Amino acid sequence: MTEVTGTEALARVKELVEDIDFTMLTTQDDDGQLVSRPMSTRQMDDSGDIWFFTAEDTKKVDEAEEHRNVGLAYLDAKGHRYVSVAGRAQIVHDEAKMRELYSPDLDIWFEDGLDTPGIVLLRVTPMQCEFWEPKHGRIVSAAAMLKALVTKDTPDDMTSHGKVSR
Amino acid sequence: MTEVTGTEALARVKELVEDIDFTMLTTQDDDGQLVSRPMSTRQMDDSGDIWFFTAEDTKKVDEAEEHRNVGLAYLDAKGHRYVSVAGRAQIVHDEAKMRELYSPDLDIWFEDGLDTPGIVLLRVTPMQCEFWEPKHGRIVSAAAMLKALVTKDTPDDMTSHGKVSR
Repeated sequence: MTEVTGTEALARVKELVEDIDFTMLTTQDDDGQLVSRPMSTRQMDDSGDIWFFTAEDTKKVDEAEEHRNVGLAYLDAKGHRYVSVAGRAQIVHDEAKMRELYSPDLDIWFEDGLDTPGIVLLRVTPMQCEFWEPKHGRIVSAAAMLKALVTKDTPDDMTSHGKVSR
Repeated sequence: MTEVTGTEALARVKELVEDIDFTMLTTQDDDGQLVSRPMSTRQMDDSGDIWFFTAEDTKKVDEAEEHRNVGLAYLDAKGHRYVSVAGRAQIVHDEAKMRELYSPDLDIWFEDGLDTPGIVLLRVTPMQCEFWEPKHGRIVSAAAMLKALVTKDTPDDMTSHGKVSR
């Protein structure tokens, strides 16, 4: 497995999370259970923070404020690309940032756009990121995995793996 | 949003998790951070338990034994299908069950198949399941969502949503 670390890994995480877009946000509920729901990624900014829109009056916001450690799971099974982000959540009221990140496709969830009552930003500050993806692109990887099946080679040399902690 | 509950919802969860297959398993590490990694779903059995293979000597197994509340996030962004499973994890040594669930495609991760040292089963017993999927299939849903964008209708009537708790 090729190991990628530091700024190279963080740059790749940014590309992956913005490209995969949809993620499952995991929070801890009052019973300590790890529950998740889909979210659309708006941006991973230059400091590494990942931004989402949400409605303030929701269970996930209550849970994220009670237990600020949250998880983001990105999964592109077809492309064999996976990203784990463990981070700290924060609700942010920032109109300029909201205008920067809003786009009309969000009107599906926020019917009055940025005027929708209770619309806020959710910022996740990553503490640990980890990712897995094929080293040689999708098709070559699929062929290589097939070969591994036949020859019983382990697929370790076909996967890029990166980890970033702070 | 169409609400589905009880056995109907559980049957649909089984179809979704076995079809989506790849999931991100979230555990809580020693710092309380919610970390995840990809896993391939073997089965959701008749009692609702979800089964995986893993190597016993891994961080995720240590974490799942320390904090038995884990999360499973299933995400099929293209099909707009999402499942959240909050459950309790248990390592299971059961040779008959392992023979039942093993298939040769797992040789990629377990090079000696069921003779690989340390191969064990990880069982997740769901405590809460929740899912989201388009009500009228992918294509109709995409069209309806486009209409929602134009007319500013909310998409509530286009999504099936189910929840199961115990």
